[in-house]
Amino acid sequence: MRLAIDVMGGDQGSRAIIEGSARAVIERPGLALTLFGPRQQIDAELSRLPQPLAAATSRLVVSDAPDSVSQAATAAWALRRGKATSMARMLHSLSAGEAAAGVSAGNTGALVALSRRELGMLAGISRPAISTAIPARGGRRCYLLDLGANVDSPATRLVDFAMMGAAMAQCIDGIERPRVALLNVGAEATKGSANVREADWLLRERADRQGFHYLGYAEGGDIFQGEVDVVVCDGFVGNVTLKASEGLTRMLVERVQMAFESRLSGRLASLLARPVLKRLKQELDPVRYNGASLLGLQGIVVKSHGSARADGFYYAIQRALKEVEHNLPARIAARWSRS
Amino acid sequence: MRLAIDVMGGDQGSRAIIEGSARAVIERPGLALTLFGPRQQIDAELSRLPQPLAAATSRLVVSDAPDSVSQAATAAWALRRGKATSMARMLHSLSAGEAAAGVSAGNTGALVALSRRELGMLAGISRPAISTAIPARGGRRCYLLDLGANVDSPATRLVDFAMMGAAMAQCIDGIERPRVALLNVGAEATKGSANVREADWLLRERADRQGFHYLGYAEGGDIFQGEVDVVVCDGFVGNVTLKASEGLTRMLVERVQMAFESRLSGRLASLLARPVLKRLKQELDPVRYNGASLLGLQGIVVKSHGSARADGFYYAIQRALKEVEHNLPARIAARWSRS
Repeated sequence: MRLAIDVMGGDQGSRAIIEGSARAVIERPGLALTLFGPRQQIDAELSRLPQPLAAATSRLVVSDAPDSVSQAATAAWALRRGKATSMARMLHSLSAGEAAAGVSAGNTGALVALSRRELGMLAGISRPAISTAIPARGGRRCYLLDLGANVDSPATRLVDFAMMGAAMAQCIDGIERPRVALLNVGAEATKGSANVREADWLLRERADRQGFHYLGYAEGGDIFQGEVDVVVCDGFVGNVTLKASEGLTRMLVERVQMAFESRLSGRLASLLARPVLKRLKQELDPVRYNGASLLGLQGIVVKSHGSARADGFYYAIQRALKEVEHNLPARIAARWSRS
Repeated sequence: MRLAIDVMGGDQGSRAIIEGSARAVIERPGLALTLFGPRQQIDAELSRLPQPLAAATSRLVVSDAPDSVSQAATAAWALRRGKATSMARMLHSLSAGEAAAGVSAGNTGALVALSRRELGMLAGISRPAISTAIPARGGRRCYLLDLGANVDSPATRLVDFAMMGAAMAQCIDGIERPRVALLNVGAEATKGSANVREADWLLRERADRQGFHYLGYAEGGDIFQGEVDVVVCDGFVGNVTLKASEGLTRMLVERVQMAFESRLSGRLASLLARPVLKRLKQELDPVRYNGASLLGLQGIVVKSHGSARADGFYYAIQRALKEVEHNLPARIAARWSRS
């Protein structure tokens, strides 16, 4: 199996991405990766890989791309002038069938726009959505979407998100009848914006036929309760919620650490508190550690967190491999042929 | 000083509210409260107050109100049929000048609608906003608004929120030039919905004249960073963000507790972890513990969390007292006369 990797655009530089890629290749015998970016820079990084990882180089092929998409670039710039960027070339190789999936840590807006043009949408879906699994109570998880591919979502698009999220929970997590809810400011039918109320009405009509269980409205706190598999919202709301959750987790972990360190001796604190807190931080920083999926495309694209280090990028590759194994786009397309 | 208290509508029943009210009165010699609700029920609760609190009864006056607003009631119902409810009567006594501020743990939508009708808006402000202080890094805090009084906010309303939030940070926290930011999906000028971009443009024009420092866009995580005093957003986004933060905090505290209990002996865990975690939970559950302010009204109304216990309601009363001391509505009105 071959995946296409955009090595540019992550905040940690190409080294973290190349190390994460090498680790994925070492662990999985049949896997090869094509690395898109400036050849000289990638070759230099490859020659510097430390020992167990250096063995991966025979399955890491470089494909030269002189330009890259900066974090400040607009989607419009990427579409008009981004042809020679590592991101566009990576997606182009996907659309040419040279790779089974693509992974990038670059500019999200550009990735959504270029993916849409290069790969095209599945029949019946107008816009991609971004989703990731949020950790919830009792070791469960909840797919939240959209996380920012769209900032104004009419009711029919929210319904699309619900169907895509349900397909993902079914396909990747094996949940037969995923429980889907619509994010709102209250559980009562009279609350919320007009878009959300219309989407609620449409979902009540369609959920049964679509093989998922529609629970109605969820409030912000319900995302973490473990009682719903998919929570649907506009990309503005999802993006803010996800980033606020990341920021809050960092602050909480810091405070817990400080509180314990002020009460325990330094040695005891290191022994007891730090390992627990480190694991917690990893579990609760879902995008940094798991990557986010672009859904609705005729192909598989995973967005790794911009600030992901090598292990974060490694997990994003794992997520892409999982979607390839389950053939996620075909499973999503199958829902639309039923609707 | 006299405050007006709506004893109905909290999820914990009237007892928690009456206990919290009694505690506030005991601690502050000059304070008297009028309790609005069914007289028989309140009298029964008052007669059951345990000892130190029982001494408060002479300064807790009952004002009979046979009905109450249920959590499921719509704002429209409250406006048309809510005249005899404890909430409406509490607000009516405020507008009649019989109390300096009002506190309720009831239905938020009804409280916003009834407050607006009974008290009226300050000149130049079209709609109330709800705000609370979110705990941030380094012991700082950040006022987030709107938290759900409005679900679709045009640009000019977002500008109003910024001015009200700045007035609150200035007046209550003594911050001379509050740092104000607009919540968005990215820091770049090209991102976000049309409303948010227009509000950004208006704020850049007006901030200096208004005596606050406008920082531009903030992302969800910035709320907790301690580098901004006021974060402005639409009520839908604010409500979801706040409730998600509450839910995440509960889950995190639970997980930290479980993780320590599995590593420490039960006794050591109780000694070390539980007190730290309990304090954290209180600090980070801002609305439950501090109440939220309704801003933009010709009067002071504080919303206590629906599920607040006695101590939560006590803190909501403290918040109302602080706003009375600083004459918050006059400070907000002064900004509009300048604009």
